[in-house]
Amino acid sequence: MKNKNKVVRFDRIGPAEVLEIHEEPERLPIADEVLLDVDAFALNRADVMFRTGNYLEYPQFPSRLGYEASGTVKTVGPNVQTIKVGDKVSTVPAFSMGEYGVYGNSAIVPEHAIAKYPDNLSSLESTSIWMTYITAYGALIEIGNIQEGDVVLLTAATSAVGLAAIEIAKSRNAKCIAVTRTTAKAEFLSNHGADFVIALENENLVERIGEITDARGVDLVFDPIAGELLEQLAQVTKPGGTIIEYGALASEPTKYPLFTALGKGLKIQGYTLFEITKDKDSLERAKSYVYQGLKKNIFSPIIDRTFKLEEIVEAHKYMESNEQKGKIVITNT
Amino acid sequence: MKNKNKVVRFDRIGPAEVLEIHEEPERLPIADEVLLDVDAFALNRADVMFRTGNYLEYPQFPSRLGYEASGTVKTVGPNVQTIKVGDKVSTVPAFSMGEYGVYGNSAIVPEHAIAKYPDNLSSLESTSIWMTYITAYGALIEIGNIQEGDVVLLTAATSAVGLAAIEIAKSRNAKCIAVTRTTAKAEFLSNHGADFVIALENENLVERIGEITDARGVDLVFDPIAGELLEQLAQVTKPGGTIIEYGALASEPTKYPLFTALGKGLKIQGYTLFEITKDKDSLERAKSYVYQGLKKNIFSPIIDRTFKLEEIVEAHKYMESNEQKGKIVITNT
Repeated sequence: MKNKNKVVRFDRIGPAEVLEIHEEPERLPIADEVLLDVDAFALNRADVMFRTGNYLEYPQFPSRLGYEASGTVKTVGPNVQTIKVGDKVSTVPAFSMGEYGVYGNSAIVPEHAIAKYPDNLSSLESTSIWMTYITAYGALIEIGNIQEGDVVLLTAATSAVGLAAIEIAKSRNAKCIAVTRTTAKAEFLSNHGADFVIALENENLVERIGEITDARGVDLVFDPIAGELLEQLAQVTKPGGTIIEYGALASEPTKYPLFTALGKGLKIQGYTLFEITKDKDSLERAKSYVYQGLKKNIFSPIIDRTFKLEEIVEAHKYMESNEQKGKIVITNT
Repeated sequence: MKNKNKVVRFDRIGPAEVLEIHEEPERLPIADEVLLDVDAFALNRADVMFRTGNYLEYPQFPSRLGYEASGTVKTVGPNVQTIKVGDKVSTVPAFSMGEYGVYGNSAIVPEHAIAKYPDNLSSLESTSIWMTYITAYGALIEIGNIQEGDVVLLTAATSAVGLAAIEIAKSRNAKCIAVTRTTAKAEFLSNHGADFVIALENENLVERIGEITDARGVDLVFDPIAGELLEQLAQVTKPGGTIIEYGALASEPTKYPLFTALGKGLKIQGYTLFEITKDKDSLERAKSYVYQGLKKNIFSPIIDRTFKLEEIVEAHKYMESNEQKGKIVITNT
């Protein structure tokens, strides 16, 4: 049960412990803003990077954080047109996290960052769809335009985005190679639809992909790690192929694989879902694509574990352990 | 005057002095091969890289070298259909340099790597068109598809490919920023058509491009240097823009500008003209595009200096001095 309005804030860069719960009055939405009564919110890798000062934007302290919440519309600003009080909605990461962080009992976001979700999803599941599926959709469909028979290589495949990418690749009848660090999650990935699973701790990536593709190489790589792995990814990509980098999980610097890229004419491009969410048309295409996939049960968001708001520090530490398979969600109820 | 058949060979990786002139009998062309009486041949950066063991292919010793010659067809193999004895032609780099190097009084290349050149070119000029213009064409037109008003950034702009890229950019009414190391060649670049010239020795690349583009950034970068320069190139490229890397002139390693690429959704792709010359259709498009541009005098190949065959070592040293503006050509006559 909710009592007073609680929000998560932090006032300095640092470990999970910098996150603190504050009681504060709700403010009213202005212009095109929407005030949500938050049922639940999801954690993203971006939140951890933002908290540690390693994200695309830097916090203005004291700062809120978080991109993905679900809840009920409580009040709308005077310019809001498509959303009304009482709607059950979730938030799409199409805003600055520092300006509109959603961790808490309530959150304000702009109207364009609100979407209704299909009835067959719970409010818990609906916290964990837009960031994940729009990220994977933009890379595999809008940029990669993958086709039947294409071979797609996914690293950090047990992340929520990795799992969504498997579903999207399979829905296009592409072949899907999932890469994970240890054998611990290999069976889970096969059960989720991966055609091949490579565990880096005891398999050689270049050799295995040579076998799997008859030395042709993969058509598309979708990788959030970078660092030293990139040279190997370049080696296993076919001539003219594309590597999409969408994160910076590696701690070491990333070398550009110049000679491999020259020899094969490789494209190595940086990507975040903001390429999709900042553009009105592609955001609408993405919302519609994801909504349909969820409604038809082609996409199944996976919740790894839930925490209570008071456990926010523990939840962030759990995300940093990299033990999860799917989303970490905080429930307010 | 030619006497005996002389060819350039080298039998080990090393400095210019490893190049030696040998007298040897001509062999007859087989299958789709064409034997040329070589009038002149041009040097390319690729030849130096091949000689020093830094090229995309590694020599099998003893090895010939060279991509670009002009001359008269002397004999054709039994399967040759479009070329006949007596044709004045030049060679297109659509073969392995180790297999079909053209430095010498005579050369054998496959039929698809032969092209007729417009009458308004001298045989000297015709040594210096295909590698240069096809490289620039593939990048700016086939990949970059530059349009009127686009801003194109060219580094190492006084190289033959850089100069060709200026002509191609201007023929599309794109704005062209030429980057060079010193002020020595700045006026030459302006006279050749560059809208803006930046001399790195006394101007800040990032600041100057910020001024020139009103902080929007450039649409396309075409760079053969890489190394530490790449981070700056990423900083001056507009969101969603493309950086085409087509060489490795820098001696230091190249760092992938991960955060800049993520934040802006940049494409950084490796490219060589072989992407164009290996594909029959794009090779035909390229040949036709370059032929028309030359015939209409939109393109004007620039010969920096000529040497005699006996001066091949000196010519290679001159190329490595980076003092030239345009092509270095060896004449047999």
